[in-house]
Amino acid sequence: MKKMKAEELAGILNAKLDGDGDIWIAGIAAPEEAREEDLIYVEAPKHKERAEASRARCAIVAEGMRLRNKTTIAVKQPKLAFVKAAEHLLEEETIARGIHATALIDASAKLGTGVAVGPYAVIEANAVVGVKTQIGAFCFIGRNAQIGDSCRIFPRVTLYADAKLGDRVRVHSGAVIGCDGFGYVYDEGRYRKFPQAGNLEIEDDVEIGSNATIARGSLGRTRIGRGVKLDNMVHVAHNVSIGEHTVIAAQTGISGSCEIGDHVVIGGQVGVADHCRIESGSIVGAQAGIPTGKKIRAGQTVWGTPARPLERFKRQYAFFERLPELAERLKRLEERVK
Amino acid sequence: MKKMKAEELAGILNAKLDGDGDIWIAGIAAPEEAREEDLIYVEAPKHKERAEASRARCAIVAEGMRLRNKTTIAVKQPKLAFVKAAEHLLEEETIARGIHATALIDASAKLGTGVAVGPYAVIEANAVVGVKTQIGAFCFIGRNAQIGDSCRIFPRVTLYADAKLGDRVRVHSGAVIGCDGFGYVYDEGRYRKFPQAGNLEIEDDVEIGSNATIARGSLGRTRIGRGVKLDNMVHVAHNVSIGEHTVIAAQTGISGSCEIGDHVVIGGQVGVADHCRIESGSIVGAQAGIPTGKKIRAGQTVWGTPARPLERFKRQYAFFERLPELAERLKRLEERVK
Amino acid sequence: MKKMKAEELAGILNAKLDGDGDIWIAGIAAPEEAREEDLIYVEAPKHKERAEASRARCAIVAEGMRLRNKTTIAVKQPKLAFVKAAEHLLEEETIARGIHATALIDASAKLGTGVAVGPYAVIEANAVVGVKTQIGAFCFIGRNAQIGDSCRIFPRVTLYADAKLGDRVRVHSGAVIGCDGFGYVYDEGRYRKFPQAGNLEIEDDVEIGSNATIARGSLGRTRIGRGVKLDNMVHVAHNVSIGEHTVIAAQTGISGSCEIGDHVVIGGQVGVADHCRIESGSIVGAQAGIPTGKKIRAGQTVWGTPARPLERFKRQYAFFERLPELAERLKRLEERVK
Repeated sequence: MKKMKAEELAGILNAKLDGDGDIWIAGIAAPEEAREEDLIYVEAPKHKERAEASRARCAIVAEGMRLRNKTTIAVKQPKLAFVKAAEHLLEEETIARGIHATALIDASAKLGTGVAVGPYAVIEANAVVGVKTQIGAFCFIGRNAQIGDSCRIFPRVTLYADAKLGDRVRVHSGAVIGCDGFGYVYDEGRYRKFPQAGNLEIEDDVEIGSNATIARGSLGRTRIGRGVKLDNMVHVAHNVSIGEHTVIAAQTGISGSCEIGDHVVIGGQVGVADHCRIESGSIVGAQAGIPTGKKIRAGQTVWGTPARPLERFKRQYAFFERLPELAERLKRLEERVK
Repeated sequence: MKKMKAEELAGILNAKLDGDGDIWIAGIAAPEEAREEDLIYVEAPKHKERAEASRARCAIVAEGMRLRNKTTIAVKQPKLAFVKAAEHLLEEETIARGIHATALIDASAKLGTGVAVGPYAVIEANAVVGVKTQIGAFCFIGRNAQIGDSCRIFPRVTLYADAKLGDRVRVHSGAVIGCDGFGYVYDEGRYRKFPQAGNLEIEDDVEIGSNATIARGSLGRTRIGRGVKLDNMVHVAHNVSIGEHTVIAAQTGISGSCEIGDHVVIGGQVGVADHCRIESGSIVGAQAGIPTGKKIRAGQTVWGTPARPLERFKRQYAFFERLPELAERLKRLEERVK
Repeated sequence: MKKMKAEELAGILNAKLDGDGDIWIAGIAAPEEAREEDLIYVEAPKHKERAEASRARCAIVAEGMRLRNKTTIAVKQPKLAFVKAAEHLLEEETIARGIHATALIDASAKLGTGVAVGPYAVIEANAVVGVKTQIGAFCFIGRNAQIGDSCRIFPRVTLYADAKLGDRVRVHSGAVIGCDGFGYVYDEGRYRKFPQAGNLEIEDDVEIGSNATIARGSLGRTRIGRGVKLDNMVHVAHNVSIGEHTVIAAQTGISGSCEIGDHVVIGGQVGVADHCRIESGSIVGAQAGIPTGKKIRAGQTVWGTPARPLERFKRQYAFFERLPELAERLKRLEERVK
């Protein structure tokens, strides 16, 4: 945890300070848990009382908001400013320091300067690890895998052979990257495994949640675009392409050969069948199911299984809720007509 | 496996023995697989024949039930008595014996008496492990993590820094405890990571399934109450609070900031969106989906997506099944009116 | 990668070669990524142009198809022939070579000839590993576990004690095999753990995806039949029996005591509640939910939650989509009758 004066922080955020700029800030917290030196933030007027009751002496607030007995830093987007403040105040946790004596690194692997590798990690032949990347305990980095600069690979992550990660990629514990896709061909009463011989490219600034699984291409490649964020236990199958800055919430599964655009938002537990196309800027509600080969047009919001435009779903669903009443009215009408 | 006479077991269970109390019991089994010395149990009269055909010589039965050629121990709740008998008959499997020579335990970590740590486990600085706790191979116990007494941490579990576990907590292989929550703020075309600086408290007697993931608070904390049982691949997001003795079946996901009460039962593959409140004693059917901010009142049973009271869902659903018929009747009526 | 002439490959596939049989084949690829020596395949006439534009000199094609400037090998089932060709052309990746010096193998464990064990793997007392089986880094093979011949256990897999695997079983990274089932009995305000004392048998030629979890029986056993393929994050609960050559896609969960037949196909994110019976040859669509105790008859295709025959679901669903229109027609009719 770094320490700075409120005044200095206001300067960094290019924001107006109101109150005592000379107080120290040495952490961040929610209003209820904050100590005096923690920074808090208030986005909506309804949280004003929570903030005023906090022990914190300094708060980031929306422009125009005043807090009793607090130093305030007023900005247009308090939550965003809080995130930026945190980037200055918090130090990233250390995943590994130096190369641990028990790390097994093949002589042919190439490690950049400042790379840290935790205890009992294994790095196989011809792997490449970029400068300042940290690799946690029990990580397995397969043959020819490439990891960019300043990546953070938490303990207990597997990279299968040939997986390729860009810079500043974070991979959380238990994730499996570049595993076999699920492909078989039926042959006289049994399944033969389709070759899983393709590759996987994960671009810069991607974050991958705990216990997520990402398959490499069977032939061709799987691609996770720059800035993509995948939550815990997300499954991405072989030959999927996910565009830039797309976010996918927990336990969602993307089947083989799907194409997902840029800036797509996909809720939790969504199932996307194979060969779907989800265009840029679209939104898929939680637990939706998108059938094989379906196209979601750019900017559309869909929900339900099978997924359809949200407004349409809501309308249909409202009548579903009224089905007992509609059936009753139909019955009465039949009797009357008789 | 311990060994005791039927008579002794009846005494422990405070139950009435019928038949030869002098026979040995040295195990438990299902009727079909039992050997002579295994104990079996029969709950419902319909399973009487299965039990009588078993090789087992001793059975726990419901009061009033007789079995041909068996020693029976009669109780009100045979399954519960069987569980209690098993607690006396079975020894818990050993996860680790002593401190393995390859375990890497930071000098600042504090281990209670009788702690066992398996091969290649890593325990980081300032971690605390309570008496008689067993930690399996390849476990990673992060900085400042606290584990209570008599816990059982199976091989290949990750505790991120600062995670806190009570006494008698069991964590199964592959679980990731205290990882980052999934929080980002959009900023000019890309996502910035919201600080994940909160903590995680898991109370006494919790059991966590294989490959489950539990995030710590972003600010503030995530809490798993006393006696909670989470099945395999359950996902609990940041800032969730789960009350005491709640059970959650496999592959369910609980989104950020949900509050779940005591003695709640949640089925498998349920999705709970963020900021929901599921009050004590309620039941959520498998695959249900609970939309953002929704409140499930105490004692309610809900199902469906979006979830609604079970009886209402069943009624609506019955009409859904009859939709083709209703549409046909409507058509005939229209023709008649014309 | 092995190398062979087109002519030799045509001979192996027992197929007709057209063009220059003397060219070398030294790999497989998708048409777009292929180099000259890669083999490609074309199944449908619509992919003919993609194939002709490829740099590959040799293609497996459907009988009757001609490709400009390519050597073609004509077969009835091009995809299947391609799989067979790949089996000859590709070498399986090496998971481990020899017994690594850091592998901890209990003196009582029995390893067949040609077994390879990766760095930091742990094999406990009385475990048995069949000939030519490869076990990756960080694998934990519990006491008394049995693994057959020619198995491939990727890095970071856990086998709980007593798990039993047949020959040629593949288990991907992060999978947990033979863990506790989820069973409790309620007793005066808290849950007591039902004994998880049964076993697990996985038959020959099974493949298990990354981060999948399979529980052993509580009493009795869990069985995964010969040739079964389970995708990533599939969950199989205690006492389930899965028949031969059944395939289950990603993130599906099978609850306790289900019986699944042979040659069943189950889509992704399906939830099967406890004690269901899914007979041989049936198909369960993605995200379907099968309620407790339900029976799916042999050869049936079902979808939806609760699952019902696909044709019935489609019909009902079509009317659901038309609900706003039906309600409007009902309203007009009511007005008219008035």
